[in-house]
Amino acid sequence: MSYSEFELIRRCFVDEGLGFDREGVVLGIGDDAAIVQPPNGMAIALSLDTLVEGVHFLKHAPARLLARRALAVNLSDIAAMGAEPLCFTLGLTLPESDDGWVAEFAAGLLESARQFNCPLIGGDTTRGPLAITIQVHGMGRAESFLRRSSARVGDLVCVTGTLGDAATALLLLGCESHLGPQFAFTSRPNKTQEQALLARYYTPQPRTDFAQQAREQINACIDLSDGLLGDLAHILEASCVSAQLDLEALPYSKTLMAVLCAEQRERAALGGGDDYELCFTVAPESLAGVQDIARALALAVTPIGVIAEGSGLTLSRAGEAIELASNAYRHF
Amino acid sequence: MSYSEFELIRRCFVDEGLGFDREGVVLGIGDDAAIVQPPNGMAIALSLDTLVEGVHFLKHAPARLLARRALAVNLSDIAAMGAEPLCFTLGLTLPESDDGWVAEFAAGLLESARQFNCPLIGGDTTRGPLAITIQVHGMGRAESFLRRSSARVGDLVCVTGTLGDAATALLLLGCESHLGPQFAFTSRPNKTQEQALLARYYTPQPRTDFAQQAREQINACIDLSDGLLGDLAHILEASCVSAQLDLEALPYSKTLMAVLCAEQRERAALGGGDDYELCFTVAPESLAGVQDIARALALAVTPIGVIAEGSGLTLSRAGEAIELASNAYRHF
Repeated sequence: MSYSEFELIRRCFVDEGLGFDREGVVLGIGDDAAIVQPPNGMAIALSLDTLVEGVHFLKHAPARLLARRALAVNLSDIAAMGAEPLCFTLGLTLPESDDGWVAEFAAGLLESARQFNCPLIGGDTTRGPLAITIQVHGMGRAESFLRRSSARVGDLVCVTGTLGDAATALLLLGCESHLGPQFAFTSRPNKTQEQALLARYYTPQPRTDFAQQAREQINACIDLSDGLLGDLAHILEASCVSAQLDLEALPYSKTLMAVLCAEQRERAALGGGDDYELCFTVAPESLAGVQDIARALALAVTPIGVIAEGSGLTLSRAGEAIELASNAYRHF
Repeated sequence: MSYSEFELIRRCFVDEGLGFDREGVVLGIGDDAAIVQPPNGMAIALSLDTLVEGVHFLKHAPARLLARRALAVNLSDIAAMGAEPLCFTLGLTLPESDDGWVAEFAAGLLESARQFNCPLIGGDTTRGPLAITIQVHGMGRAESFLRRSSARVGDLVCVTGTLGDAATALLLLGCESHLGPQFAFTSRPNKTQEQALLARYYTPQPRTDFAQQAREQINACIDLSDGLLGDLAHILEASCVSAQLDLEALPYSKTLMAVLCAEQRERAALGGGDDYELCFTVAPESLAGVQDIARALALAVTPIGVIAEGSGLTLSRAGEAIELASNAYRHF
């Protein structure tokens, strides 16, 4: 594939309107580098993720949905910092020139870019095995970003939305789940349920609005990409605290309740990943305020545990402590 | 490859000291996002490049040199903006866990990161076909960044260093040159000459110091990644001007003079690419000052042409206009 073909592809992204104007972006696509300038006193949060065909998504995954997912997983990191989306860059590696694919991909990117007011400002298009690298930039006051290291003893551990749907969608996509061969549907989903699960996989909803609005009340925060157990462990380690989780409090969608038994749901929520919900800690007296903010955004916030002194994670179900098999989930 | 192996690899980068402290970097590796905060009034220039095995470098390319090259090509974009290197992110896709490779790669990154005071602040490690995506961030006053669009009629067109060495090194690496099968050594290089050429390919020297110091005198600037003709064309288009180039003025290394005839040298310089030198325009009265700055950095600055009204590029040799075959170089 020639350089000029890639130039055409690059221009296709520009022509789609992906490089729309945005306060804070001084110079977008077209020079040796893009330029961003946050207002005085503001800092930039940045996060980079790579999605590789055959590893993070299947061959022949729909280009439009793939684009939305690729941008969303990065915006979720920006949400976890309590930052406002600013702009993104794209490193796109394509095996061949495919106008239809590129047009669909650009259309998907544009949908999410507009939704989050986050224009494309630059990047690189190369030949090679299909892979998508996106770096998203967010904006905020440096001292008010949400970190993993700020959990306090006595805080409640909360999650937004529901857990386990995206990990369960992988069963529909024919992917080998890292949850093992024993992870399977209890009841075969109907078409509507399938679509609901796949939507959770392909178009995760980064909780940027919620995180920005609730930032002052929240102590520590992380987004759920690898599964609750692994991700919460990062908060515990960074904050030098322990946590007790009540497994019966884990929030599930109606769809998941219908297609998985309790044991399988728990497995999907604790170790599945791909939820792109937020897990955060908040002082008990601030919970009501945070839930009010969430409610106004039609978002659920569910307390699922409590932060304590020490280290590690204790699980309980119906008040009884649960022993977690050390090989049960990939991060433990 | 398991998640934990990647976690180990990521930590390897941290343990190598790649995440060293740097003014302007508020938070580095280890949270959902890194945080950078330029001093008030300063803006951030950012550039992303992807290198793919088998496309941008050969299988079994030395990991340490590959790392240096990957960081250098991005730093060259930052240099072309006249910005000060600030920090970088890394998206590394690896087919398998290879401790030796990763250690060498990290060591190479560290050499260049230290040289340019540009620490690693975050990124992503994934499984898949070997590919390296780096985004470099530079810092400067928004109004003083060097752009492609600021060339003025009467400006001299200049280049730093010498041209064509890296493109010629590809002949040693057994790569198929896009310069065509007729591009070949006139005289077989000896070991010393081979090493000199390979060094220009693997360890290009981003002209960051020069560009920052000469920023006030320079009008338009671009770095030479695709070859002089194609890259200069970007300046001409962005600035709505034309240029006349004197082919006899093109600067070559002693090595290139020894191994290529005049015609082949010209081919390598005009269409070869991978030089990562700067091509810039400067008012005639500012040339001496810019050359003084370059001399203090042991760098050559050579005027090779002049900017005129109109559009397009005219080439001359010994005062005679040259017709450029439209298919002679990939960008024309």
